Amino acid sequence: MKQSKLFGKTRKEVSKDEKSINAELLTKAGYIEKHMAGVYNYLPLGLRVFRKVENVIREEMDAIDGQEMLMTALQPKELWQKTGRWDEMADIMYQFKDGHGSEVGLATTHEEVVTEIARQQINSYKDLPMFVYQIQDKFRNEKRAKSGLLRGREFSMKDLYSFHTNQEDLDKFYMVCHDAYLKIYKRLGLEAFSVEASGGSMSKEFSHEFMVITEAGEDITILCKKCAWAQNKEIAQVKNGEKCPKCGEKVIEEKTVEAGNIFRLGTKYSSALGLQYTDKEGKKNDVLMGSYGIGLGRVMGTVVEASHDKDGIVWTAATSPYHIHLLNLAKTDKTSKRADEIYQKLTDLGWDVLYDERDISFGKKFKDADLLGICWQLIVSDKNEDLELVARADHKKEMASLDNVDKKLKEFYK
Amino acid sequence: MKQSKLFGKTRKEVSKDEKSINAELLTKAGYIEKHMAGVYNYLPLGLRVFRKVENVIREEMDAIDGQEMLMTALQPKELWQKTGRWDEMADIMYQFKDGHGSEVGLATTHEEVVTEIARQQINSYKDLPMFVYQIQDKFRNEKRAKSGLLRGREFSMKDLYSFHTNQEDLDKFYMVCHDAYLKIYKRLGLEAFSVEASGGSMSKEFSHEFMVITEAGEDITILCKKCAWAQNKEIAQVKNGEKCPKCGEKVIEEKTVEAGNIFRLGTKYSSALGLQYTDKEGKKNDVLMGSYGIGLGRVMGTVVEASHDKDGIVWTAATSPYHIHLLNLAKTDKTSKRADEIYQKLTDLGWDVLYDERDISFGKKFKDADLLGICWQLIVSDKNEDLELVARADHKKEMASLDNVDKKLKEFYK
Repeated sequence: MKQSKLFGKTRKEVSKDEKSINAELLTKAGYIEKHMAGVYNYLPLGLRVFRKVENVIREEMDAIDGQEMLMTALQPKELWQKTGRWDEMADIMYQFKDGHGSEVGLATTHEEVVTEIARQQINSYKDLPMFVYQIQDKFRNEKRAKSGLLRGREFSMKDLYSFHTNQEDLDKFYMVCHDAYLKIYKRLGLEAFSVEASGGSMSKEFSHEFMVITEAGEDITILCKKCAWAQNKEIAQVKNGEKCPKCGEKVIEEKTVEAGNIFRLGTKYSSALGLQYTDKEGKKNDVLMGSYGIGLGRVMGTVVEASHDKDGIVWTAATSPYHIHLLNLAKTDKTSKRADEIYQKLTDLGWDVLYDERDISFGKKFKDADLLGICWQLIVSDKNEDLELVARADHKKEMASLDNVDKKLKEFYK
Repeated sequence: MKQSKLFGKTRKEVSKDEKSINAELLTKAGYIEKHMAGVYNYLPLGLRVFRKVENVIREEMDAIDGQEMLMTALQPKELWQKTGRWDEMADIMYQFKDGHGSEVGLATTHEEVVTEIARQQINSYKDLPMFVYQIQDKFRNEKRAKSGLLRGREFSMKDLYSFHTNQEDLDKFYMVCHDAYLKIYKRLGLEAFSVEASGGSMSKEFSHEFMVITEAGEDITILCKKCAWAQNKEIAQVKNGEKCPKCGEKVIEEKTVEAGNIFRLGTKYSSALGLQYTDKEGKKNDVLMGSYGIGLGRVMGTVVEASHDKDGIVWTAATSPYHIHLLNLAKTDKTSKRADEIYQKLTDLGWDVLYDERDISFGKKFKDADLLGICWQLIVSDKNEDLELVARADHKKEMASLDNVDKKLKEFYK
């Protein structure tokens, strides 16, 4: 992609009410554009990162036998009344009247919907276990949406729902999904750990949140570094500096960002909505369920919160919107032509290249490349026949032939 | 995919208020599930077809240099007031209050949004032309949503917006996109033709609609079969049986389904929202725009309307959710094992196979296969060592080895 053609310019200033690092950097770099508080448009660069996050999540959900489907945002009041959540969630659920005067809402989550659909699909113990998921846009009427992509009023989420005949099977899958989540964060380059938390409006049982340590977190976690015991501060009995209930070591407090959560729902939704299966003896029983969510924008924002410096974003290998940021620093036509050829060769080798061939100062090109945060900057200049390869993370430089760049990057992005 | 594990069962009956063929067949076959009038959940099979339509559209939009982005559904009233469409569209736009008491709406289309964003991205004639698109969920407060996927209250749409310095450039791209649309329909197996129509609420200029001839259409087109002149009945001066204004041949009337439309917007949105570019002489001018839409669910529904028979859906090569529907009609364990092996071999060869290994009658398997409409049915039975390959469209049968099936299908799906 030639940068002069890119729909997504960098800018120096952002609105002062962008308090979060992720929104500030992503906006300055031309990844996103604020539409309203907590509502962001994704420009082409931003969508590229978003799709990378989406694909990693999709692959891991497919790997644990999740079947992808797509549910709707618009909701009838009647369905949500059956579980009591029409009123319970009235504060954060957009609710209004349609053209017929019927009350409708926008889904904040899909337990009610998937349970209703499952009634057509699940009848017998032979139909279980079953795992379905979607990647879909949700809405929340947040009164304080000050955290950029971390807390949106409109946001894309992967939500998986599992259906089981018994608690043992639910517990087993709950851990399978728990481990799949850790795999997702690892692949995306995030250091995440799981933390026990309350079930909130979803469930009475303990749930797990997945936490990433960042400078400006939203949550506080009580954590034991020795045995990896961790609880959300909200439910933890032990306080900062006290002994870990598991190993006796001193626990510490961290500010953390929650980047996913999983819930054992039990029969809360199946009993309210009449989702039953017939067992081997012909007896009808309520289906047990689990619910497993990750916000895609939230994960993308978390990567920025966890990985940036004073100059801009530092994408991880799996989230970098392009593999290479090629900077044309030619002063002569001959060198500029060489840069064009290198762009073509890299593209032919299968690399995704953002090519800065803009007619602007070299200083501005360096500044923009650091702000954008693509993992590798590759410089073509009159000074050298070889290329200068710069790692965005630590600005380490080395001279390399095109062949060596290709080899080195294959290793990095493998 | 083993059919016994599929989240998406066939059913005999659908609700009587499903009047449209597409909704009836897609629901019976387990592709979609109605949630409210005009609001459908996509089950895994339905999402597979949806993604195929999406990918064809995306490829053709990328091929004409469209840059993909993603805009939001939630809209502030203030923006839409600037073009007068907050009031003009009040009938079909969901409008309500958020948690702060501010009036917000759900986007029915994105001219206002993209023009607002483009103000940050387009300054000079050097930034033009520019083409951006998205594949995104839109909402319309339709009072009569009786056409299944053809007219939804929540629906996914590909909308591309183009920006130009002059009318000639806009006209040129308008025809490029026109031709890309015809390519999309052709690839999807739909016979579509373009028809002149009014610009509606989008523009005062003539627009083009893309029409597919089906049994139960929503529109009437005045069409000349000889020279391919066509106009929407609404604007056509000539009536059924009169002479074509272009070639003199008699024109005919057809019931048609609209499966896409393109508009020259001129400066309607840029002048209202202040989107200007600086020309070579340093003078500021309003940017000219175009807008180009295709509804994904509408296209999927149109395929069903145009291609079905009394037994069910007949997918086209590009829309078939799986390449092969493998039917295990074994009466012995030995043959059943052979069917399992063929499933594995086909999968290893790279084919997407839906494998009906359910413990149900053979008659029910045949009936379901016809209802589902996958292009090729492949039968394993005790009778033959070879496989029986059946074309869904005409039920022509032939015996074939696995090698020959592979060869034949490579030709069909190429």
